[in-house]
Amino acid sequence: MNRLNKVQKSLVKWGVDALVVTSPVDLFYLSGIEMTSGMALITKKQGYLLVDGRYLEKCQKQKMLKVIKQAPKALQKLLTKKMSLGFDQVNMSYLSYSKLQEEVPCELVPLSSPIEQIRAIKEPEEIKALERSIRMLTMGFDFISTRLRNGVSEKVLAKELELFWLNAGADKLAFDPIIAFGKNSSMPHYRAGCVLLKPNDAVLVDIGVVVDGYASDMTRMLFYGKPDPHLAEIYDIVLAAQEKAIKNVKPKVIGANLYNTAYKVIDSAGYGKAFMHGLGHGIGLDVHEFPILRATARDVHLEPGMCVTIEPGIYLPNIGGVRIEDMVLVTKTGHKVLTTCPKAKVILPIV
Amino acid sequence: MNRLNKVQKSLVKWGVDALVVTSPVDLFYLSGIEMTSGMALITKKQGYLLVDGRYLEKCQKQKMLKVIKQAPKALQKLLTKKMSLGFDQVNMSYLSYSKLQEEVPCELVPLSSPIEQIRAIKEPEEIKALERSIRMLTMGFDFISTRLRNGVSEKVLAKELELFWLNAGADKLAFDPIIAFGKNSSMPHYRAGCVLLKPNDAVLVDIGVVVDGYASDMTRMLFYGKPDPHLAEIYDIVLAAQEKAIKNVKPKVIGANLYNTAYKVIDSAGYGKAFMHGLGHGIGLDVHEFPILRATARDVHLEPGMCVTIEPGIYLPNIGGVRIEDMVLVTKTGHKVLTTCPKAKVILPIV
Repeated sequence: MNRLNKVQKSLVKWGVDALVVTSPVDLFYLSGIEMTSGMALITKKQGYLLVDGRYLEKCQKQKMLKVIKQAPKALQKLLTKKMSLGFDQVNMSYLSYSKLQEEVPCELVPLSSPIEQIRAIKEPEEIKALERSIRMLTMGFDFISTRLRNGVSEKVLAKELELFWLNAGADKLAFDPIIAFGKNSSMPHYRAGCVLLKPNDAVLVDIGVVVDGYASDMTRMLFYGKPDPHLAEIYDIVLAAQEKAIKNVKPKVIGANLYNTAYKVIDSAGYGKAFMHGLGHGIGLDVHEFPILRATARDVHLEPGMCVTIEPGIYLPNIGGVRIEDMVLVTKTGHKVLTTCPKAKVILPIV
Repeated sequence: MNRLNKVQKSLVKWGVDALVVTSPVDLFYLSGIEMTSGMALITKKQGYLLVDGRYLEKCQKQKMLKVIKQAPKALQKLLTKKMSLGFDQVNMSYLSYSKLQEEVPCELVPLSSPIEQIRAIKEPEEIKALERSIRMLTMGFDFISTRLRNGVSEKVLAKELELFWLNAGADKLAFDPIIAFGKNSSMPHYRAGCVLLKPNDAVLVDIGVVVDGYASDMTRMLFYGKPDPHLAEIYDIVLAAQEKAIKNVKPKVIGANLYNTAYKVIDSAGYGKAFMHGLGHGIGLDVHEFPILRATARDVHLEPGMCVTIEPGIYLPNIGGVRIEDMVLVTKTGHKVLTTCPKAKVILPIV
């Protein structure tokens, strides 16, 4: 089944006669073409791609969607008064919604990330691309492990990694590398800064890369010398929580329950309040995409073909933090962990 | 006047008692902190920053906005029923708008890119950052000029440029380099592909880089050997149109009129239909930001401190295209062209 057919099949489930698509990633998924603006309209019978003059020539090169030049009444002509038209309320701005409402003759139905729901189930070729991305990620992680030395800054390590990846043929970073020395690791969304590495620092490495359009994402802790006993203790708790959650990844599992599996391990060790983010997220063309695995994800059901991260953490201000993250593919019978870097405490020599 | 005061001063102009800010770039502009989620609330008396647990520690490091932990009723407590609350309809999703409407006790007022309007007028420190970004851009352009050789692909050139910039200390690319050989230049939003350079190809180079958070953006044509006579002809027309538009950049000029200045030159040469995009855009923390200079920009008035691109083009399918782009600062008395690479036809030796 091609991607157009997948969307058309889902229209009934969403309770709409047609769907309008405007997010660039979704448009790329449907057309294979990168564009910063444009619109797809998927009806039960046909898929259209409405683009402005800049993209006309480029878009003629794909054949799945019928290309139409964007014009004031172009959309109106493709719809009737009786139709219900779905739109992505997560990605469409209030302004675009208001304009759409004025333009179309029919009812608008807010949907939450409809195309992302389809993108969540990866095709075999997409899984291969994710695996290529992970191979590049692993090379980068191994590279970082060899580059820890006294006095290197977080930013320099991040830049060395980026250059390594580009030289090795990566598309680009999936996100700005999070490389946090010592106490900085207590901030979950820290970016690499100007702090210098010193003996016995813990190093949180949360990195990801894009290869052939597909993102990867993994977090590991490296210990540059002797681990702080408190961090070593929470490391073991986070690892236990992460492994228990991974064990439970299989079809039909509910997102909120998976989050709770990890949360309970951390909470029963006394650190519940120090795990203040979700358990993980889908990953593919976007580094963060549907499904989001968090405490409130009661309507998320895992399905074969989904690829999600599992990344619990414990963060202690002024002491430091630990997060361990893997990418896990949901299979028909259970799961497969795609990221394979070791998770025993890696203690590196001081140089 | 600090940035909080600038926003507070504008509240009256926008006709609201308070403004909610959610776009990451706007939040960075106000707080100096990079965050993927969070919210600022600016009232006439106070600025608040509402963030979740991941960002609390990081945000305490800034002092302009009062940091509050995001919680279900946190926003409600800061507002009263009689207030009117502005929001950015261009950046806020329909879903976020719906949630906000349920959460706050007061009227919501759609505004178009309010913080971007303030960001449009650059502070002296921001202009210095833009100039640093342009110095890096110029180095990259000079580098590209030395790397044209038979058989090199567009993609390889783009990757060589990225590595050059990163090694030289750039933050990152401002956008994927547009490097188009020969006929490919007829697609305004082409990306570097696998086509190989051959003698007498024209090369469209539209590149930009980020330094200290600020983007730069410039387009030049390089001729690898003898220019095609048709391209040489449209080159002269585009250059005349661009120079005429730049000459007209000064305070109070209307965006649509500036567009027309360039359009008329191109149209009177018979190529009006082949100039199918806007004339330019503001540039700063974002590579494309307010103001957008296009045919419909009748309510855009240039002001001192604005930095805009001026980039007309002519595109002929199956022949090729020409675009010439500079960054231009609006000064009190006129303008200053910030990008200084030569615009005479650069003919490079075949190697």
